[in-house]
Amino acid sequence: MSLKNDLFLRTLAGQEVERPPVWLMRQAGRILPQYRAIRSRLGGFKELLFNPALAAEVTIQPVDELDVDAAIIFSDILVIPEAMGLDYSMVEKKGPLFDKTINEVADIKKLAVGQSAAEKLDYVFEAIQITKKELDDRVPLIGFSGAPWTLMAYMVEGQGSKTFAKAKKFLYQHPKESEALLDSITETLIAYCKLKIKAGVDVIQIFDSWASMLSPDIYNRFMIKQLNRICTEITEVPIILFSKGAWFALNEMKTLDCQGIGLDWNTKPAFARAAIGPDKILQGNADPCLLYADPSEIQQKTKEMLSAFGKKHIVNLGHGVYPDTPLLGVKTFIKTVKEHKY
Amino acid sequence: MSLKNDLFLRTLAGQEVERPPVWLMRQAGRILPQYRAIRSRLGGFKELLFNPALAAEVTIQPVDELDVDAAIIFSDILVIPEAMGLDYSMVEKKGPLFDKTINEVADIKKLAVGQSAAEKLDYVFEAIQITKKELDDRVPLIGFSGAPWTLMAYMVEGQGSKTFAKAKKFLYQHPKESEALLDSITETLIAYCKLKIKAGVDVIQIFDSWASMLSPDIYNRFMIKQLNRICTEITEVPIILFSKGAWFALNEMKTLDCQGIGLDWNTKPAFARAAIGPDKILQGNADPCLLYADPSEIQQKTKEMLSAFGKKHIVNLGHGVYPDTPLLGVKTFIKTVKEHKY
Repeated sequence: MSLKNDLFLRTLAGQEVERPPVWLMRQAGRILPQYRAIRSRLGGFKELLFNPALAAEVTIQPVDELDVDAAIIFSDILVIPEAMGLDYSMVEKKGPLFDKTINEVADIKKLAVGQSAAEKLDYVFEAIQITKKELDDRVPLIGFSGAPWTLMAYMVEGQGSKTFAKAKKFLYQHPKESEALLDSITETLIAYCKLKIKAGVDVIQIFDSWASMLSPDIYNRFMIKQLNRICTEITEVPIILFSKGAWFALNEMKTLDCQGIGLDWNTKPAFARAAIGPDKILQGNADPCLLYADPSEIQQKTKEMLSAFGKKHIVNLGHGVYPDTPLLGVKTFIKTVKEHKY
Repeated sequence: MSLKNDLFLRTLAGQEVERPPVWLMRQAGRILPQYRAIRSRLGGFKELLFNPALAAEVTIQPVDELDVDAAIIFSDILVIPEAMGLDYSMVEKKGPLFDKTINEVADIKKLAVGQSAAEKLDYVFEAIQITKKELDDRVPLIGFSGAPWTLMAYMVEGQGSKTFAKAKKFLYQHPKESEALLDSITETLIAYCKLKIKAGVDVIQIFDSWASMLSPDIYNRFMIKQLNRICTEITEVPIILFSKGAWFALNEMKTLDCQGIGLDWNTKPAFARAAIGPDKILQGNADPCLLYADPSEIQQKTKEMLSAFGKKHIVNLGHGVYPDTPLLGVKTFIKTVKEHKY
């Protein structure tokens, strides 16, 4: 590997580094005028998703514009459910909407699973290959996937939800079949991530966006074992696990063979470090809304965060950056991190 | 006071009791066929809200049907913003929608504040008086209010939101004016709760439904002091504070002069007890979706919860009961609690 900026990878490898690396979840998105320009030419989100050249272009935009220490491939967590047989559309201002869902146990058997399902996502792998070529080794490229529970949540619920009560009901009423569904998702997810790695990504991040919907009992009984399988079977590159809102399971995540743990903005760094132990790299966790504040306030709060985390830290927000965040706020945040010296 | 069942009040008073009391958030609601029958005769939610006789009737329904240890007045947290001058409508399947919102600093000055605003809510006080008469001292009656932050969140955002980014942006961009807004809400809230108490409620519960949107820094800097003022100024009846998702602030809540702390389903009882200290009563916190499970599973998990909490516990869910919860599940949950002996 001959990366010009390998700070992100050295940090994940546990090496001593000069400052924490910084990138933003959803950095390849609406905060950038360059992204909005491309989107306005297209019919919708999925048109961009299915276009490898344009997906590569928007992936690289934040590296050019924001000088972040890592790129993350422009994609969507719901490509796996689609590859498994559940198509969805992205409804403007509403979010994803599935045509078919897992309504009953019999629906699980109809899903495509594993390597053959993952291989359908060739447009993602092609986008990665183009990105790697055009990035020209400036920074590492992150590939990502939704976690098994978050994907199951959408596959049963069929859309976003404040409670994901339908998906949770399925879990409570059909625990064994839910486990089979989770196993199938995990198998597909692993095959998918391995194909992403083959295409060139340097790191995998797993997003469990709806972890907070579950109780500690359910999360630890059903989900930790799926995450464990992912961390055990994907050994080619470092893994960052971001279970949003799963502060209650940090102790259980301590045992997982991943390199990084993402934190939401509710979690104080000292709490996370105590729960997760000294080894793993913590990633996060500024409140996305901090970036709406005055530059001086952004600077001050970012410095407080840097000092609270100390070393073994990758700087990010505690959630994806919100679409209407001012570029000045984003740049002030990144600049403050880059000026920090350990 | 000559309540026939005062278990709930004795528990909140820290007395030794024979078993934990049980009630459910949103017990006066769609889970009951009796409630659905009344709603189907009316135009909408607010028609019921504004009708004291019917509001009293649906308040008492769960006492009759479920034999819970407390009633909670049928009402809505958004009556305070309305009394302050921001009308809203309740859109079926979407939630609240405000005609006007706090868009700029000047809008704060236009709000009605305090006693005169609170007095407009006469239909609530009348519903409480009717309920108290018709309840005939069977169980205590809980009155409630949204917490200052949760009310501010709706007043700025104008509707529900996954992120309440608009309300948080206001907080970050106008910290001083946000504090003035929060002060006004708190003043109105206290006047409102005192009028509720005068009308007959035995306990006040404060719902900070969107606490989890905030970072520990913001919650502790802006919100704890408002909650402290509420707990200091409302001394007539016990207070239960339910800050959903604010696990990170439990240590700060320890110092508040309230009797009970509500817990969401993410929070393990032992964690909460350690953070909050030995004195306060903990309320909660079964996963609402547990009630979709088989009765035997409900029994087992409820018993595990009872044993994890031990004494100084009021049983509830960790969130309002979901509308499509089977009555059998609800009744199994309550029966399991009632059969429990310390």
